[in-house]
Amino acid sequence: MDPLEQRVLAANLAFYEAFAAADADAMLNLWSQHSPVACVHPGMPPLYGRTEVINSWRQIMAHPRAPRIHCTDAKVHILGAVAYVTCNEGLLDEASSLIATNIFVLEDGNWRIVFHQAGPLVTKSTVVRPSQYPHGVN
Amino acid sequence: MDPLEQRVLAANLAFYEAFAAADADAMLNLWSQHSPVACVHPGMPPLYGRTEVINSWRQIMAHPRAPRIHCTDAKVHILGAVAYVTCNEGLLDEASSLIATNIFVLEDGNWRIVFHQAGPLVTKSTVVRPSQYPHGVN
Repeated sequence: MDPLEQRVLAANLAFYEAFAAADADAMLNLWSQHSPVACVHPGMPPLYGRTEVINSWRQIMAHPRAPRIHCTDAKVHILGAVAYVTCNEGLLDEASSLIATNIFVLEDGNWRIVFHQAGPLVTKSTVVRPSQYPHGVN
Repeated sequence: MDPLEQRVLAANLAFYEAFAAADADAMLNLWSQHSPVACVHPGMPPLYGRTEVINSWRQIMAHPRAPRIHCTDAKVHILGAVAYVTCNEGLLDEASSLIATNIFVLEDGNWRIVFHQAGPLVTKSTVVRPSQYPHGVN
């Protein structure tokens, strides 16, 4: 794999390791200091700005039932000094149930996350199809 | 508003105008020619590559019940020659029901879309909460 892609994948992995470990300080350090950050938790409206985003992660990870999410099928897409990763998210020992996108920027030599969006992946067990579209895709 | 942000917003608007008009050729022209493209339709696994992504839009827009989506609350976030837009999507005359992210790259002087993800926004009418997290965000 391309060394650049490897470094982005490592940053993506660090994000999920911080999430799984409920390590709020590690999570804080992974987010960009200088670029505009935003975050879309599943089903929720977007959060904007480092303070609001970081606070949401602190709240999620402080919860006693905080999910232990893992990431699979991560694919890196490089756009110069920006990269985006698409991946699946799921609970350990369970099938993936969310689809996520993470955007990273190269900042002071490190890839920092600027954006995270996760949304439900429709599975056989899904009761309600949550979308109006795509018609005709399947 | 910053002229750069205005240009990205215009590209985002053009995307939704092509979608609402079911204009597959216009949609085709809005996607990047040179960068790695991907698309996550609501509830679906990601599609990768220009051919797969464009074909999905052709299928969606060819459907007789193709939704007439409009975009509200678009917010632009500039990352150099890359920008991402977060916005709400909904059917005309209805409240927003999807939350979307679009990533654009500056390509030959034009902002071209490289990535689109839409997922359900949880509303009062939502029957099933589609996510495991965020616990404690609300």
